[in-house]
Amino acid sequence: MSEFEQATVVASRGDGTYDAAIVEGWDIAGNANGGYLIALAARAMTDAVERPPLSITAHYLSPGKVGPVTIDVDVVRAGRRMAVVRSTVASPEHGPVMALLGTFADQPAPEDAGPSVIAAAPPELPPIEQCVPAGPPVGMNDSGFGQRVVCSYHPDDTGFRSGNPTGTAVMRGWFEFADGTDVDAFGLLVALDAFAPVCFNREEFPPSWAPTLELTAHVRESPAPGPLRCVFRSRFIQNGMFEEDGEIWDSRGVLVAQSRQLALIPKPA
Amino acid sequence: MSEFEQATVVASRGDGTYDAAIVEGWDIAGNANGGYLIALAARAMTDAVERPPLSITAHYLSPGKVGPVTIDVDVVRAGRRMAVVRSTVASPEHGPVMALLGTFADQPAPEDAGPSVIAAAPPELPPIEQCVPAGPPVGMNDSGFGQRVVCSYHPDDTGFRSGNPTGTAVMRGWFEFADGTDVDAFGLLVALDAFAPVCFNREEFPPSWAPTLELTAHVRESPAPGPLRCVFRSRFIQNGMFEEDGEIWDSRGVLVAQSRQLALIPKPA
Repeated sequence: MSEFEQATVVASRGDGTYDAAIVEGWDIAGNANGGYLIALAARAMTDAVERPPLSITAHYLSPGKVGPVTIDVDVVRAGRRMAVVRSTVASPEHGPVMALLGTFADQPAPEDAGPSVIAAAPPELPPIEQCVPAGPPVGMNDSGFGQRVVCSYHPDDTGFRSGNPTGTAVMRGWFEFADGTDVDAFGLLVALDAFAPVCFNREEFPPSWAPTLELTAHVRESPAPGPLRCVFRSRFIQNGMFEEDGEIWDSRGVLVAQSRQLALIPKPA
Repeated sequence: MSEFEQATVVASRGDGTYDAAIVEGWDIAGNANGGYLIALAARAMTDAVERPPLSITAHYLSPGKVGPVTIDVDVVRAGRRMAVVRSTVASPEHGPVMALLGTFADQPAPEDAGPSVIAAAPPELPPIEQCVPAGPPVGMNDSGFGQRVVCSYHPDDTGFRSGNPTGTAVMRGWFEFADGTDVDAFGLLVALDAFAPVCFNREEFPPSWAPTLELTAHVRESPAPGPLRCVFRSRFIQNGMFEEDGEIWDSRGVLVAQSRQLALIPKPA
């Protein structure tokens, strides 16, 4: 079992409730990574309907702290192909952590997929060894998450780490699990929330906590093995919030996931 | 009361359940417009937490048919500013119609909003009288929805209506309510799902039903009075599905809403 699989084990009680744990080492400054929490919930939701996530939305209720959690899963509708499922992740000690709603389904067989029309290209990235692996975010404590995943940033997008934001709310880079295991549909959910908030590359927003309110992920294809190319950008920072749009492309140059999140701008520390 | 307000009245039973109706005339070929259904649910969710929608996600379970519905609202968490709310819209006759999850909150006061960084511009549209008001979709029966809202398409994007798709999965145009009333946060939810599916402008996808699986709407600002500029586009049509990204801009040139939906490509009739 990979580190990620071990950290996202869920056990069904048979009544819609799953026992799981927020595992040490998937945190940033003490709070579990949001994508990791979504993946944890998605494991239970997938178990309940025997299909992987296609579109999943998470609303963040409180920071995820290390320790046991329950995941209550409610199957709203399980059709022949699509299943719609709700869940809530809660900590007995800290209360509700995340509320989710998703459609779960297998990708269609190639002969049923229909025509493709792609009006975009993967982000241009230098080879991974010329990119800048992420350490802990500037000004934050050491991060367990940074030991589990490797986000290798495009050198042009790392200005925020040294107090020289690039001026453009974009982050590009490669994503891999640190233990070298391949990324599946659940791993994509982690990758979609693994990079630094894009607003850190604007001088108006010094690096500090930028709480996500909601993140929606679409899994568009099962990823091929190998590091993933990622790009995140925001076009509208206004009214104290910003949207962050993510794309993940696999080693074949196929788009495998998209995300959009709505987050609060970081407050100066 | 405007036509839209009349068509989205909800009545609380006091126990989390609301009585409402899918009203005649908000359908396209017999199925209620999806954005109208989201607005209907959002009315009940807003009543429960006394705040308007900020981010709302709907998963479509079955077509909405005219007649009474119940909306079951579950307040997951109501904080000082943000409230997270779930709901299900169901018809006693036809069963579950839609499952929703959202964060509800007022927009911040201007002095609390923080800096704005906008890296986009509203779509360039000819004056509304030079645009092409939508009739019923080609090949479909007369549409009640087309009597309630006016989508005035950019003349460059109307090829799909005459069997000459433009080749680009984009739809641009103006949105108004037909009775001339202004569009508020709830009306934005209608506008975000009011235009024809963007894939109709690709010859691979003849106009036919393109079922939405999920739509997420972000209300980013209260719209100023006047017609709204809208743009919808898709960049990834693959694996039998397409995402459709929407933006709505108000008469001041301010972005007021964003959406992304995941839908199934239309099947040839």
